[in-house]
Amino acid sequence: MTQFVPDDHPHRRQNLLNGQWVLVSPHRAKRPWQGETGEVVKAQGPSHDPSCYLCPGNARTSGEINPDYPGAFAFDNDFPALLPDTPGPDSADPVFRIAPARGTARVICYSPDHSRTMPDMDLPAIRSLVDCWAQESATLGERFANVAVFENKGAMMGCSSPHPHGQIWASDFVPTEVADEDREQAAWRASRGRVLLDEVAERELAAGERVVEANDHWLAVVPWWAVWPFEILLIARDEVGRIEQLSPQARDALAEILRKVTRRYDALFNTSFPYSMGWHQCPAGSADPAAWRLHAHFNPPLLRSATVRKFMVGFEMFAESQRDLTPETAAARLRAVEIAA
Amino acid sequence: MTQFVPDDHPHRRQNLLNGQWVLVSPHRAKRPWQGETGEVVKAQGPSHDPSCYLCPGNARTSGEINPDYPGAFAFDNDFPALLPDTPGPDSADPVFRIAPARGTARVICYSPDHSRTMPDMDLPAIRSLVDCWAQESATLGERFANVAVFENKGAMMGCSSPHPHGQIWASDFVPTEVADEDREQAAWRASRGRVLLDEVAERELAAGERVVEANDHWLAVVPWWAVWPFEILLIARDEVGRIEQLSPQARDALAEILRKVTRRYDALFNTSFPYSMGWHQCPAGSADPAAWRLHAHFNPPLLRSATVRKFMVGFEMFAESQRDLTPETAAARLRAVEIAA
Ligand SMILES: O=P(O)(O)O[C@H]1O[C@H](CO)[C@@H](O)[C@H](O)[C@H]1O
Ligand SMILES: O=P(O)(O)O[C@H]1O[C@H](CO)[C@@H](O)[C@H](O)[C@H]1O
Repeated sequence: MTQFVPDDHPHRRQNLLNGQWVLVSPHRAKRPWQGETGEVVKAQGPSHDPSCYLCPGNARTSGEINPDYPGAFAFDNDFPALLPDTPGPDSADPVFRIAPARGTARVICYSPDHSRTMPDMDLPAIRSLVDCWAQESATLGERFANVAVFENKGAMMGCSSPHPHGQIWASDFVPTEVADEDREQAAWRASRGRVLLDEVAERELAAGERVVEANDHWLAVVPWWAVWPFEILLIARDEVGRIEQLSPQARDALAEILRKVTRRYDALFNTSFPYSMGWHQCPAGSADPAAWRLHAHFNPPLLRSATVRKFMVGFEMFAESQRDLTPETAAARLRAVEIAA
Repeated sequence: MTQFVPDDHPHRRQNLLNGQWVLVSPHRAKRPWQGETGEVVKAQGPSHDPSCYLCPGNARTSGEINPDYPGAFAFDNDFPALLPDTPGPDSADPVFRIAPARGTARVICYSPDHSRTMPDMDLPAIRSLVDCWAQESATLGERFANVAVFENKGAMMGCSSPHPHGQIWASDFVPTEVADEDREQAAWRASRGRVLLDEVAERELAAGERVVEANDHWLAVVPWWAVWPFEILLIARDEVGRIEQLSPQARDALAEILRKVTRRYDALFNTSFPYSMGWHQCPAGSADPAAWRLHAHFNPPLLRSATVRKFMVGFEMFAESQRDLTPETAAARLRAVEIAA
């Protein structure tokens, strides 16, 4: 039989962070496409949009007026999915299982400039965002078991306002995906005596082929187990489990690598690259806080061009995640684009 | 404190089939939308499209000519994600975990008519599709551990050709989601001595509020734990674990309920309703085949109208599934639409 070549032959890879498998079908990238195509996202509009809920000085749906904020600015979501004081269900029905859910939701405007997404922001502006994440995480972490910090970028990723912003949903429960990562990281340290993501970072750096960017404090790779075509895992290389634990140096280095990674994304298909980005950090009641390493995931949907995306449907929904190009190819393409310093 | 009202207060519900939780935030449906909107899907085009790969008599990308098929028609996918004879990796690396994946992929044209989706097909045509599913499942089930039968309907759900069709991906491994359902159903029967979905069907019928359609052989509900806004779970009420085990009566009854459910979907927002639909059936090597009950999931993305969809991004990707209207409200709306017999 022919020898196995990962770039030619279907195979499965396992995500060590959540235990899930992904089917890799590299030969499939050749199929024709008569399905949906998106629109090329044009250069951004004005720096201030009078009809935008999030621009400084404008009124939000709640009627509240945004202050004239100079950098990153966080406020309570006017339509929170979680509420701090809500009555909880009282039922032990084994078939219709229900549990209370309390929490709070915040919005973070990345900058006063309506037109600048992360790759367009300068380093001090990104650093101001990092500090805002850290402060929100610290404050909310005192009250809630989990603080989920994320960004939906681009209309394709369900972003409901074009003003560059992210969100925080803090909850009194540990959500499914965080609970899975807590379990897997704790199990890894218990069986191997090492921090899972430290070992992954070490091996990825040594292999090199999936590395996109690296500096003294951070590593950005298309992980071995990537599901989305150009997915990136951004791993902290210092011993930190939460955003607020980052040193000033690590924060500067984070601003730098965030700018580089997002500029590579925009350059890849010459478009404002849509994605969902989410931080994972150690929750309260972790099975093993020392097993945690702070990290962020970038899940971008584009597959072949600025208009053709990957859909997570059908087999992916009902059977298993599936991808069409190898993580190694994706990383090589992200490394190959030219970005201005 | 106020009393808990599921239609007002955030809470979590658990999916018994895969063990996952979903956050329900019914109060959130009121938020404004400045994000992406889709297009209203117009009435279908001609019955035969000369540029369609799937119409009878036309050439596919492979060069092969489709026969002049009269009803449902299955053939090998020209761009299969799985191949029957492919070399497997040989590695026991604990960090970069890899496994072989072999299988085959088939396409099923639902009918020769380019313009008729399932709700437009008459009962004998849908019955021909059911028989085709059963035969494919039986034949492929002899060679492969899992037979995943599914349909991506509509451009919004990544359907790559407008000709009504579904797919089958058969694999020599049991995919993640099927393995999860196998584990949960086996555990349920071990601890309660009953088939999980029998108990669920009994309780859903008794409660009534989430029932959309029912007949002697099938029950269609917006399940207690629904994630997608108008998600439906279609449960077999006979003792069957696989499609090919369905009696002639159950097949006729399936054609009937499929037509009713998909007509309700189209009527809801007066549009050709997009969804991914997938069957789950007992795989080879099941922990407990007697614990299985054949069922299908419908995951439709539309939320508020023919153009505003739910996005599974951000919190949903990195934390936990989340929905904005209760399953009870969704079921009531699906029951309320008028459909011709
Ligand atoms: O096979 P198709 O129709 O080209 O592709 C579609 O279905 C597949 C299986 O659900 C998905 O992997 C693709 O993302 C989707 O576009
Ligand atoms: O809160 P927004 O921006 O209105 O909504 C967006 O982010 C939420 C959190 O990821 C998702 O639940 C919504 O589907 C998405 O459209």
